[in-house]
Amino acid sequence: MRRNDEMTLGLFLRPAGHHEGSWRDPDVPAKGEVDIDHYAKLAALAEGAALHFIFLADTPSVIEQDYAAMARVSRTICFEPITLLSALSSRTQSIGLAATATTTYHQPYHLARMFASLDHLSGGRAAWNIVTSGHRFEAPNFGEEELPDHDTRYVRAKEFVRVVEGLWDSWEDDAFIRDKQSGVFVDTTKLHVLNHRGSCLSVRGPLNIARPPQGYPVLVQAGASDSGIQFAAEFGEVIFAAEPSLENGKRYYATIKEKARSFGREDSQVLIMPGIVPVIGTSKEEASEKLQRLHSYMHIDTLIGLASRVLGSVADLRSVDLDSFVPESLPQTNFFQSRQKVLLELAARHKLTWRDLIRLVAASRGHLMVVGTPDEVANIMVDTFDQRAADGFNVMPPTLPGGMTEFVGLVVPELRRRGKFRSRYSGQTLRENLGLKRPLNRFTRPIAE
Amino acid sequence: MRRNDEMTLGLFLRPAGHHEGSWRDPDVPAKGEVDIDHYAKLAALAEGAALHFIFLADTPSVIEQDYAAMARVSRTICFEPITLLSALSSRTQSIGLAATATTTYHQPYHLARMFASLDHLSGGRAAWNIVTSGHRFEAPNFGEEELPDHDTRYVRAKEFVRVVEGLWDSWEDDAFIRDKQSGVFVDTTKLHVLNHRGSCLSVRGPLNIARPPQGYPVLVQAGASDSGIQFAAEFGEVIFAAEPSLENGKRYYATIKEKARSFGREDSQVLIMPGIVPVIGTSKEEASEKLQRLHSYMHIDTLIGLASRVLGSVADLRSVDLDSFVPESLPQTNFFQSRQKVLLELAARHKLTWRDLIRLVAASRGHLMVVGTPDEVANIMVDTFDQRAADGFNVMPPTLPGGMTEFVGLVVPELRRRGKFRSRYSGQTLRENLGLKRPLNRFTRPIAE
Ligand SMILES: Cc1cc2nc3c(=O)[nH]c(=O)nc-3n(C[C@H](O)[C@H](O)[C@H](O)COP(=O)(O)O)c2cc1C
Ligand SMILES: Cc1cc2nc3c(=O)[nH]c(=O)nc-3n(C[C@H](O)[C@H](O)[C@H](O)COP(=O)(O)O)c2cc1C
Repeated sequence: MRRNDEMTLGLFLRPAGHHEGSWRDPDVPAKGEVDIDHYAKLAALAEGAALHFIFLADTPSVIEQDYAAMARVSRTICFEPITLLSALSSRTQSIGLAATATTTYHQPYHLARMFASLDHLSGGRAAWNIVTSGHRFEAPNFGEEELPDHDTRYVRAKEFVRVVEGLWDSWEDDAFIRDKQSGVFVDTTKLHVLNHRGSCLSVRGPLNIARPPQGYPVLVQAGASDSGIQFAAEFGEVIFAAEPSLENGKRYYATIKEKARSFGREDSQVLIMPGIVPVIGTSKEEASEKLQRLHSYMHIDTLIGLASRVLGSVADLRSVDLDSFVPESLPQTNFFQSRQKVLLELAARHKLTWRDLIRLVAASRGHLMVVGTPDEVANIMVDTFDQRAADGFNVMPPTLPGGMTEFVGLVVPELRRRGKFRSRYSGQTLRENLGLKRPLNRFTRPIAE
Repeated sequence: MRRNDEMTLGLFLRPAGHHEGSWRDPDVPAKGEVDIDHYAKLAALAEGAALHFIFLADTPSVIEQDYAAMARVSRTICFEPITLLSALSSRTQSIGLAATATTTYHQPYHLARMFASLDHLSGGRAAWNIVTSGHRFEAPNFGEEELPDHDTRYVRAKEFVRVVEGLWDSWEDDAFIRDKQSGVFVDTTKLHVLNHRGSCLSVRGPLNIARPPQGYPVLVQAGASDSGIQFAAEFGEVIFAAEPSLENGKRYYATIKEKARSFGREDSQVLIMPGIVPVIGTSKEEASEKLQRLHSYMHIDTLIGLASRVLGSVADLRSVDLDSFVPESLPQTNFFQSRQKVLLELAARHKLTWRDLIRLVAASRGHLMVVGTPDEVANIMVDTFDQRAADGFNVMPPTLPGGMTEFVGLVVPELRRRGKFRSRYSGQTLRENLGLKRPLNRFTRPIAE
C-alpha cells in the first residue's frame, strides 16, 4: 500500500525526450524511436528508481504538420504503445505500464482484450490513458472526414469506458475452476454476457480472456476542458494535467477531488499527477545553458509547426511577427481545448512574445518546467506536493536517456532525503503500488454499493 | 536462404494442446492459457529446434457453444495474440511470430500499425495470418447482427490487405536520415500518403511508423473455399491447409501453385503448410493408447459442442444418434465452408459414424493426424513433402508442452537424418528463413514490375 506522505512518479516516455530539439543532442541515440533496446533501457532506469509507471502517449496518425516542419522532428514515427509495452512487460518486473488509446477510433472489444492481455502478461501492471483524440489526421485514417465535435467525443468516451469495464467483468475472478478430475474447466454461472446496446455502441460480449489481475487496469485520464474534468472526476484514477502555475494547480487539484467526491469517490483513489520537465544542472546557469542548447537545435520551421499544432490554429502563424506579444485569445479550437487555454494564460501572465511562447511549448508543451539544480527541482516538487497541487508527477525529461539518468541519479535521492519518495516497490500490481483499490466485478457488487 | 529440399515447420500454439481433452492431461499445466511463462517455454522449445515460426489462431469472441459444452473446454479464454507475440519477441531471438487477425472486424490503420510495430520489436520476425472470420458471436461484439456473407467478407479482405500494404509503404526504406548536423530527420520526398478511397474502406495514411524491417510482415492465409483459394493464391506467402489425405493434398498443392503462377508469382514464394497432429509413442500401440486416453477426457457435451461448431450446424446434433453414419451432405454453412467440406469427405471415405467423426474433429480438427512412432511420423511427413503435397507443416501437438517436447526430441532428429530439416537458422528475418523475397515499396517499384 502507498503511504500518503509519499508522492507517485511516472516516466513519460518519448523516443528522444520531451524537448522538440532533443533528437539532435549528441547523447541521444540516433534511432531510438523504433529501437526496443532504447526503451528497455529507459524502463530499467525508471524501475531501478522504483518509479510507479512508464507512460506512452499516442495518436493513431502522424501529427499534422507541413512538410517543412515534419522533416525536422523525430517523433513522426514511433512504436504502437500496447505492443511496445507488451514487449517491455517481459523485460521488467515491477513497474506499471501505461498506454494511451483513443475511444473515438477504437472498438471497445479489441481494446478491452488488449489491455486485459497486457495486464495478464505483466502480472497486473497495465494502465490505460483514455483519450478522445484531437488531431486532424486521425479521422481520415478511419474512414471519416472530420473529428467529431468535442462533446460528442466525450459522450462516446463515457459509454466506451463502461462497455470496456463490463467486458473485463465478463468472468468472475473465481470462474475458472480447472478441475482436471471432474473435467469442469469453468463455472458458467460466473460468466456474464454484457449485451450492451447504447446510443453509440452495441457490444454483446463476453470477453474471451479472464478478468484482468487488477480487476480493471488502472484508468488514467487527462482533460482540462469542462467535459474533460467531468470525465476525469468520474473515471480517472490517475489524472494527468498540464499545469505550470502553483495557484492554478491547487485550484485544479481541489476541483477534481471535489467533483470526484460527488461521484462517491475517496480522495486517495484519484491521483493527480501533473507533468514536470526537469532541466537539471549543477548550477542554475548550467541548467539554463542546457536549455538554450536544446532551443538552438530547433529550426524556425519546427517552431512554427509545433506552435500551430498545439495552439490549434494551424493556418495563421506563418504570417505572425514572432517578436510581437501573444494576444489574449484565439478562436477556440475543436482539438485540445485545455492545452490552448493553459498556454494563452501563461503568455498573458508572463507577457510572452510568440517566440518565447513557442520555445516554452517546444520545451514543455505547457507543463511545469523547472530549470535548476537537483535540489531546486526537488524543492519545487515537494512544495507542489505539500501544497496539494499534486499527488505526484509525470516526469518528462528533456532528453532521453540523459535527462532520466540525471533525474534518477540526482533528484530522486533528494526526494528520498526529504521523505517524499519510496525506495522500493511496496506491492505486486500497479494498483497496489498506487494504493488504488481493486474494483469489484459489477455483476457481483453488493446492491448497496 | 532456404534450401528447396528442406521443409518449413511452424508450431501452432494452443494453451493446452490441440486435442480438445488435453487440458485434463496430468502433464499439461493447469493455468497455461494466460501464463506467459508457459508460452515462453513453448517458444523456446520451438526455437531450440530451429522451427520457422510459432503461430497463434484467433477469434475476437468466445467460440459459440452451449454452456454445457463451454464449461468443459479450456480455450474459451486466451491471450490476445499480437500482445502475446510482442511479449514473446523479447524472449526469443530468431523464431518467426505469426498472429491471426480478421479483416472483417478490424480497422486497417490499427492493424497495419500493430504488425509493423511487432516487426520492428522482433527485428523482422512478424507474420499475419489473414482471416475473414467465421464465428457467429464475432459480429455482435462489433455492433453488427450477423456475419457478412462469405463472398462479401473476401471482397473486404482483398481491399483491406492492399490498404495495409499501402500503409506499410508510407515511408521508403531510406526515408529516415536522422542527420543531427543539418537537423533534417526525414526526407519528406520519401513519404507517400495512401489516400485510399475504395468500396469498403477509406484510409488516408501515412502510417506513423517506419516501414517494417521485412518490408511487409509475411502474409499467411488459409482458406479452401473458392474465394479462399483465390485469395491465398494472390496474397498468401504461407498457406495453411487442413488436408488429411495425400491425394487431395497433392491436388490442393498443385491448384494453389498454378493459380499463384497466374498472378505472376513464383512457386518458391508460396509455401503450402498443412497442419499435422503427431500422436507419438515408442510403438504404434502406445501412441494409440495415448490418443484413447485423450479421447476419454472428453465429456459427451464437449463432443457435441465441438462437432456442431466445426460442422457449422449448431442446432441439430443433440438429436442425432451418435452411432449412425454421417450423411454425405449437410446444408452449406456461412461459417467455415472448407472445413465442413473436408470433414464430410473424410466421413464418406472412411464410412465414419458421428462418434468417430467427432472424435477425429476433437483430436485433429480435420488436419492430418499421424498416430505412431517418431519414425512413422517422419516418414509420412517426408512422403507428403516429397510427393509435393506440402512445402512444410504447421505442427499441432495434441498436448503442450509434452507433445512438443516429443516432437522436437524424437521427430525433428529423424527429419534431419533424412536431410529434410535444417539444424539452425540461416537468416535474420522470418522472410530470409522462409526464402521469401522482401517486397519492394509499391511507390518505388519499377513500372515494368
Ligand atoms: C500528460 C498528458 C498526456 C496526454 N497524452 C495524450 C495522448 O497521448 N493522446 C491524445 O490524443 N491526447 C493526449 N492528451 C490530451 C488529453 O488527454 C485530452 O484529450 C486533451 O487535453 C483534450 O481534452 P480536453 O479538451 O478535455 O482538455 C494528453 C494530455 C496530457 C496532459
Ligand atoms: C491452420 C488453420 C488455422 C486457422 N486459423 C483461423 C483462425 O485463427 N481464425 C479464424 O477465424 N479462422 C481460422 N482458420 C480458418 C481459415 O482462415 C478460413 O477463414 C476458413 O477456412 C474459412 O474460409 P474458407 O471458407 O475460404 O475456407 C484457420 C484455418 C486453418 C487451416
